[in-house]
Amino acid sequence: MTRVRIDLFSSLDGYSSSIDQTAGMGEDWGRLTQAYAATRTFRRQVLGDTSGAGTTGLDDAHAAAHSVGVGAEIMGAAMFGLHSFPDDPDWRGWWGENPPFGTPVYVLTHTAPRPSIPMQGGTTFHFRNDAIETVLAEASAAAQGADVRVGGGLRVARQFLRAGLVDDLHVMIAPILLDRGARLWDDLRGLERTHEVRTEVAESGTIHVTFTRQAA
Amino acid sequence: MTRVRIDLFSSLDGYSSSIDQTAGMGEDWGRLTQAYAATRTFRRQVLGDTSGAGTTGLDDAHAAAHSVGVGAEIMGAAMFGLHSFPDDPDWRGWWGENPPFGTPVYVLTHTAPRPSIPMQGGTTFHFRNDAIETVLAEASAAAQGADVRVGGGLRVARQFLRAGLVDDLHVMIAPILLDRGARLWDDLRGLERTHEVRTEVAESGTIHVTFTRQAA
Repeated sequence: MTRVRIDLFSSLDGYSSSIDQTAGMGEDWGRLTQAYAATRTFRRQVLGDTSGAGTTGLDDAHAAAHSVGVGAEIMGAAMFGLHSFPDDPDWRGWWGENPPFGTPVYVLTHTAPRPSIPMQGGTTFHFRNDAIETVLAEASAAAQGADVRVGGGLRVARQFLRAGLVDDLHVMIAPILLDRGARLWDDLRGLERTHEVRTEVAESGTIHVTFTRQAA
Repeated sequence: MTRVRIDLFSSLDGYSSSIDQTAGMGEDWGRLTQAYAATRTFRRQVLGDTSGAGTTGLDDAHAAAHSVGVGAEIMGAAMFGLHSFPDDPDWRGWWGENPPFGTPVYVLTHTAPRPSIPMQGGTTFHFRNDAIETVLAEASAAAQGADVRVGGGLRVARQFLRAGLVDDLHVMIAPILLDRGARLWDDLRGLERTHEVRTEVAESGTIHVTFTRQAA
């Protein structure tokens, strides 16, 4: 059964970002993601570090789970880079010729449609100017029983959350107070009534909160 | 060495209250404080339940620590009840003739000073229309080496926090989203730089966050 998943970072005071770095948070971004970037999984998967270095505790377990079982990805235009390079029809994303997705990736855009871009490693970028429910239906079909991950940015993630479309939300809360940035939790009152909440603390002090909708 | 302590409740999205119930949060108050009210310590100290019922895990350990080592208390006028009964010169607080403090209690007020009220059990209410630093100095002297607890309400607690006067902040975070109420964390950016942060999760799922200023 396909589930819709989101992973986000947040400070203790609820200033957040998705896993991409399009939010322009400066040094706060590094502090939010510090524990994640220290994991063995991140070092191996993102940095290509095969030495086995990195943390192996709860932070790493969540980092490893992040990329397992995903059959399709949805992201916003900013995360793909369309806002940064609006006039470049040949822009192919930030990730080089072999992006780390390995699945169809649906890019939400309000601009003129672009042709799909097949990349190496199983990633194909599709551009859709449709309602999020419509794009989700297409992504779900493409996922062929695996999960759909909403990768970000935060604004897109919050659109899906507010629409009640997310089955699994995982938030990594760094125990720091930022007092500025984009707010994660607004307009989500009562999410704990539709989803089961689990709270955990990693060795790094990071709080992991997961909201899980029970399968019908 | 006297330390200044505060205990607060918060939702995951940062809507908060102090331990008193003057915030008028309705059912949200009960949900914020549910894990605390379930502890054996609360049941014994507040409800007088000597049966030994109640939880005994991390929530209880924090509840027990709440009242140990306090030599003086500071609270706002609303918490004492002056806003609820402004025209009653004989108002003696919500707690009956034997209040649970057992120490001098300094009530911050902007109205005309009242005479101090000695109660049973070692509690004496004093009313002060002074700067918080001035009242804190008096309370610290009265504490005779024990700690000063800022009991609430939230507005008073935040005044002390923003002024950098708090050595130990303990926040019990219920894993629920309220999306309304009084905000705890505003204007406290960087508290983790002056205080050591510890995060823990109790059996109830409650997240306990403590900020501890290292003694000079």
